[in-house]
Amino acid sequence: MNSTQPTSHAKLRVRYAETDAQQITHHASYLVYFEVGRSTYIRERGASYAEFEAEGLFLAVTEANLRYIQPAFYDDLLTVVCTLAQARSRSVTFEYEIVKTETQQTLVTGSTKHICLNRDNQVSRIPQTWLDRLSAQLA
Amino acid sequence: MNSTQPTSHAKLRVRYAETDAQQITHHASYLVYFEVGRSTYIRERGASYAEFEAEGLFLAVTEANLRYIQPAFYDDLLTVVCTLAQARSRSVTFEYEIVKTETQQTLVTGSTKHICLNRDNQVSRIPQTWLDRLSAQLA
Amino acid sequence: MNSTQPTSHAKLRVRYAETDAQQITHHASYLVYFEVGRSTYIRERGASYAEFEAEGLFLAVTEANLRYIQPAFYDDLLTVVCTLAQARSRSVTFEYEIVKTETQQTLVTGSTKHICLNRDNQVSRIPQTWLDRLSAQLA
Amino acid sequence: MNSTQPTSHAKLRVRYAETDAQQITHHASYLVYFEVGRSTYIRERGASYAEFEAEGLFLAVTEANLRYIQPAFYDDLLTVVCTLAQARSRSVTFEYEIVKTETQQTLVTGSTKHICLNRDNQVSRIPQTWLDRLSAQLA
Repeated sequence: MNSTQPTSHAKLRVRYAETDAQQITHHASYLVYFEVGRSTYIRERGASYAEFEAEGLFLAVTEANLRYIQPAFYDDLLTVVCTLAQARSRSVTFEYEIVKTETQQTLVTGSTKHICLNRDNQVSRIPQTWLDRLSAQLA
Repeated sequence: MNSTQPTSHAKLRVRYAETDAQQITHHASYLVYFEVGRSTYIRERGASYAEFEAEGLFLAVTEANLRYIQPAFYDDLLTVVCTLAQARSRSVTFEYEIVKTETQQTLVTGSTKHICLNRDNQVSRIPQTWLDRLSAQLA
Repeated sequence: MNSTQPTSHAKLRVRYAETDAQQITHHASYLVYFEVGRSTYIRERGASYAEFEAEGLFLAVTEANLRYIQPAFYDDLLTVVCTLAQARSRSVTFEYEIVKTETQQTLVTGSTKHICLNRDNQVSRIPQTWLDRLSAQLA
Repeated sequence: MNSTQPTSHAKLRVRYAETDAQQITHHASYLVYFEVGRSTYIRERGASYAEFEAEGLFLAVTEANLRYIQPAFYDDLLTVVCTLAQARSRSVTFEYEIVKTETQQTLVTGSTKHICLNRDNQVSRIPQTWLDRLSAQLA
């Protein structure tokens, strides 16, 4: 990731419910952690994703990719680094890095791609105010 | 449970994602299994719960109780026995028994209570056609 | 709840993955939130529940009860108030109150009961050091 | 997918708990559906994945990729088509296609890659008996 790209850092702890019989965090949990990172990214830029939906627009996930490097365990404190990798008129791509907070070890990396849909499920332009907001480089 | 009460039997297998680091099925998974039982109960009576919602009505859960007797494990085949315990004008109560299919051992029992809400979140009468449908004693 | 009972307060935000098609937090999510409250309760008393398991002991859930008063929505900030209601030689009971942080409105209340099992799944005494730790009244 | 590759077909229904506030199946649910497909694939070849773990070996997910084409809704009946795309001495790759059973429309496609680990978390050879079993072309 390019250090000049807008980024957010969300912290969370692995819940017992998110572990599995291998005694590690279940691999599908990380897709939810990515979402927590994305929600934080948007909230930090002055709005909840709920507001976006209130305008009758949705960001539909069209693609998700995950690389699992090391497992996380119950009660581990994790940092979800979320970066806006690309913002186009109708789609955005986020990249993620899930880091064990204590050791700064990278556990999982990945990306998700989203297109903007209106209430009739038609691909729509992301309003410019939202694109500006999403691209905001916070101090 | 009274054997004359209307009942459904849903079958499911414990998924790996539903286990936890104790290497058993996570205790919150059973609340989802209850819901699978309830969905099956309604579907077998000629309608999906989705149709009910299409009429602008919702069954909101107001209470849930679970008793855990024995754990289920990954890949266990379970039967969710769901019984309509009570149907009133504005609420219904379902009772559940989760049985290990192979041994017929009872693993978990419980109940959920639901009230009927309209789109404005006001407690509403359950339409009589739905009460009749819910109370149907299948052959 | 008795204000003299040992209590913890955990904060969390409703994740998008935890909502359902009723556009509210799915009712099974609260059982996971209770667990987050319990984990926090134990962690604040100087140990992770993982340490307890490292001693070859498990707290198995034997009972869970939930009362749903008001729904939570995506991105709501919630406080999980967790209180040790009863500690016996072989079992503990926790009580929970899930509060919308902003308004202090109670959304869900409930309890879980747990027994102590050893590696052979036999009911066991909770070590006195753990009972003392669990009962600790923090400042 | 190559029609000569060994394949399994698992059927499941979308659960209410798996939907989200967009009133569609949450995108992380499909990773769990892939797992259901994989479990079915292995079970149909004469063994549960639990047996594999009983030998002290684990298949750790190292990669997951998902393409979302059309959403699934509550109560939709889905078929998870799971194909063994590649089997090597230390890793296997599965490919998936999630199809709406009624219309045969493809909703989601994807793949997962797994390496074999022993109890000490070292990359290990998959026993030949397991490779043979996994590669079995059923009638």
